[in-house]
Amino acid sequence: MSVPSKVTDYIAQNEAAFVKRLSDAVAIPSVSGDAAYRQDVFKMADWIKNELTALGVTVNFKDLGKQVLDGQTIQLPPAILASIGSDANKPTVLLYAHYDVQPALKSDGWNTEPFELVFDEKNDRYYGRGSTDDKGPLIGWINVLEAHVKTGTELPVNLKFCFEGMEESGSEGLDELILEESKPGKFLHGVDCVCISDNYWLNTRTPCLTYGLRGLSYFKLTISGPARDLHSGVFGGTVHEPMTDLITLMSKLVTPDAKILIPGVYELVAPLTPQEKALYDALDYGISDVEQSAGAKIALSDDKIKVLMGRMREPSLSLHGIEGAFYSPGAKTVIPASVAGKFSLRLVPNQTPDKIEQLVKAYVTSEFQKLNSKNKMELEHLHGGEPWVDDPNHWNFQAAKRATEAVYKKTPDFTREGGSIPITISFSRALNVSVVLLPMGRGDDGAHSTNEKLDRSNYLKGTQLLGTYLWEVANKK
Amino acid sequence: MSVPSKVTDYIAQNEAAFVKRLSDAVAIPSVSGDAAYRQDVFKMADWIKNELTALGVTVNFKDLGKQVLDGQTIQLPPAILASIGSDANKPTVLLYAHYDVQPALKSDGWNTEPFELVFDEKNDRYYGRGSTDDKGPLIGWINVLEAHVKTGTELPVNLKFCFEGMEESGSEGLDELILEESKPGKFLHGVDCVCISDNYWLNTRTPCLTYGLRGLSYFKLTISGPARDLHSGVFGGTVHEPMTDLITLMSKLVTPDAKILIPGVYELVAPLTPQEKALYDALDYGISDVEQSAGAKIALSDDKIKVLMGRMREPSLSLHGIEGAFYSPGAKTVIPASVAGKFSLRLVPNQTPDKIEQLVKAYVTSEFQKLNSKNKMELEHLHGGEPWVDDPNHWNFQAAKRATEAVYKKTPDFTREGGSIPITISFSRALNVSVVLLPMGRGDDGAHSTNEKLDRSNYLKGTQLLGTYLWEVANKK
Ligand SMILES: [Zn+2]
Ligand SMILES: [Zn+2]
Ligand SMILES: [Zn+2]
Ligand SMILES: [Zn+2]
Repeated sequence: MSVPSKVTDYIAQNEAAFVKRLSDAVAIPSVSGDAAYRQDVFKMADWIKNELTALGVTVNFKDLGKQVLDGQTIQLPPAILASIGSDANKPTVLLYAHYDVQPALKSDGWNTEPFELVFDEKNDRYYGRGSTDDKGPLIGWINVLEAHVKTGTELPVNLKFCFEGMEESGSEGLDELILEESKPGKFLHGVDCVCISDNYWLNTRTPCLTYGLRGLSYFKLTISGPARDLHSGVFGGTVHEPMTDLITLMSKLVTPDAKILIPGVYELVAPLTPQEKALYDALDYGISDVEQSAGAKIALSDDKIKVLMGRMREPSLSLHGIEGAFYSPGAKTVIPASVAGKFSLRLVPNQTPDKIEQLVKAYVTSEFQKLNSKNKMELEHLHGGEPWVDDPNHWNFQAAKRATEAVYKKTPDFTREGGSIPITISFSRALNVSVVLLPMGRGDDGAHSTNEKLDRSNYLKGTQLLGTYLWEVANKK
Repeated sequence: MSVPSKVTDYIAQNEAAFVKRLSDAVAIPSVSGDAAYRQDVFKMADWIKNELTALGVTVNFKDLGKQVLDGQTIQLPPAILASIGSDANKPTVLLYAHYDVQPALKSDGWNTEPFELVFDEKNDRYYGRGSTDDKGPLIGWINVLEAHVKTGTELPVNLKFCFEGMEESGSEGLDELILEESKPGKFLHGVDCVCISDNYWLNTRTPCLTYGLRGLSYFKLTISGPARDLHSGVFGGTVHEPMTDLITLMSKLVTPDAKILIPGVYELVAPLTPQEKALYDALDYGISDVEQSAGAKIALSDDKIKVLMGRMREPSLSLHGIEGAFYSPGAKTVIPASVAGKFSLRLVPNQTPDKIEQLVKAYVTSEFQKLNSKNKMELEHLHGGEPWVDDPNHWNFQAAKRATEAVYKKTPDFTREGGSIPITISFSRALNVSVVLLPMGRGDDGAHSTNEKLDRSNYLKGTQLLGTYLWEVANKK
């Protein structure tokens, strides 16, 4: 079985309608992180429900309860659980995507209105918030459905959908729902594999399949002393300054060449096999890609494998900033009363947030004691996520590989990603099936940045890819 | 010669009129830092002109030109240059004060309307913006003039006044005016001494005379690398992160016990004489005062002299914050593209901003090179101010001392302040005469804070003090 040409032809011939669909979706500013936009997140859920229902899908909204945001208690947007097909002879594929987006204001530095899909003829790409993250892929699935329905083609698999509206804001409530719905007799029970299209190619050339993600441990290290901010003229040289303590502690976490200084962190890292090492060398990605993507020649090493392993299979520690200190332009002679350093570690197998938290707490506590400061120190573990790695030889990955080869005439890169997509772990654990990350967009799409874009060819070939993948999954044996 | 009792009696008997005068002045919201209040700053200048003129003083407004504020080009408030008396046999005293105030809104946390002088019977004090900084002292001089005029008493000295309306906003234009007016034949030429009443007692108990101020060198240390903010999941472990470089450098500036690590900084400090050391021990100020004022037991030492010297005669280095890094509550996994650490040194004789800038530049550059980072480093000296120290044995200080003893029956503390009052340096340099800082208010007045206050006794005894000082100056030989 392979994807019928009437399906792929339909997709090729209906570009205008698909772009219209994406345009309509981008026009709804479904920003989950800002209470002022919550009604738009709900509007987006309704929009999806209408689209799916019109294509014969059974759609349910799962109420995830309330949250407190910007000082208000407001309703969480629903998880959309939907399905089509229940043929016991077909594999059942669970598709995940999210319909919320990152905040965006034109004044942030956008060249176009962020909530308007704008075609850039010169570069053959579409600009707009959510174009690539994650409305493009979500709508890709809808386009695939339409192509089957309108051509009278029976789907080769049973489909279940889990679309959420809180991904950009911590996926509140979703973990519990997944656990609950994975129980026998519930919605997610019996799923054979999962496909998530919510990440990106490594570069702008070669499609990829992602089989691993780093985890995360995010910390807030607070030092407080005086009862209020002090004037450095009056108090400088007389008291223990919280900023001095904090900067000293933060400097002991990681070196400028990115070596983590917390004892025990590296001992938890799974050893590298020669087979895994070979995978990095094979990738169509190098130091120049990293540096082009960063916009500067600042790679930590001249050794490609080292740099790629630094992203994919080694832990890292980044210092993000300081809350409570002076952060504006200009000069203010303040001794801030309480300052909180934010830093996080990216975790890899076999590190876990729990073990990392223990190591960080022990180390920071002992280093703070060495300072002999009269200030107070507090370490909080704001959140954690486990690292994840799957088997790239599983039929789910092999189906995605064949689909990629069919659409792009290229063997995909098999990659592990540096960032976390916590939902991957949730599905992997709750369902105990293979999860393939099958991206639609390119490495330079700028998800979460200003001028987020999706290349026209990625949208159209990406829709073909998703459709072809379903047919290849049907060949799983 | 000492102050005639008819003058001191007049002051004692006219409290109500003096309070009315302060109340009228506080009611004019002469906030210099906000264009919306500029007309009130001018109104305040006119009010002062009327008061002085009515008492026989010749008043001139000096136009200081225009400034750009809040996006508008607006007229600077005038410097008020005024004088009374030109007897060659009398010393000429220059009095400085400022008639502008800090911003204040009731919603900032004031218990009373900030631009209304409100008497607090329980604590015997007056609340209101400008009550202590600096309308109370400025009006103290007017009260003294009135006491002489109304009792038919000839002033024992020639008086010149320099009252400015931009002190809280950088004293724009005043330095140039002082230099110009100090030339032979000009207004300030021939001044024998200067008295500035615009600072505070160390505590709430003992009057003080201030003979030294620390200077300032404020730096901005920028590290930049990537062309845009990066995601720590994608780039953590692959590139040189500007924050890691910056935190490492900032940690090399000062230790948690406040020792400055920049070579050469301490070598510039004037040596401590046993005589000066004894002054600190004599001060009615201790570690508990410092800690009460800071609101926490965080003094760097248990040794009073060490702590007071740390504020008054030692340099200090404070880390104020970081521009460009993540500063909000919550958790953001950003690698900021460009971050700028703000730090400043408080300078003491014989340090100068120029010398300090050289030392900091050399050190930071060499430390950055050691990091072997591919990021870029830039150090900017945002602004500097010279430290100042005067001779507490000069007749100007001894006159202020005798006046204090006469009014308060107490020997004043001879203090050096940790913060800078740049105008002091300007007068000291341009006129090359003694400048005494003779405060009216107490250490807990809360200038620049909400609920700024002036104790009733400080206002009335302060007026006596200013009047008595003039008579003691007349005894200068
Ligand atoms: Zn996403
Ligand atoms: Zn996203
Ligand atoms: Zn002042
Ligand atoms: Zn002030």
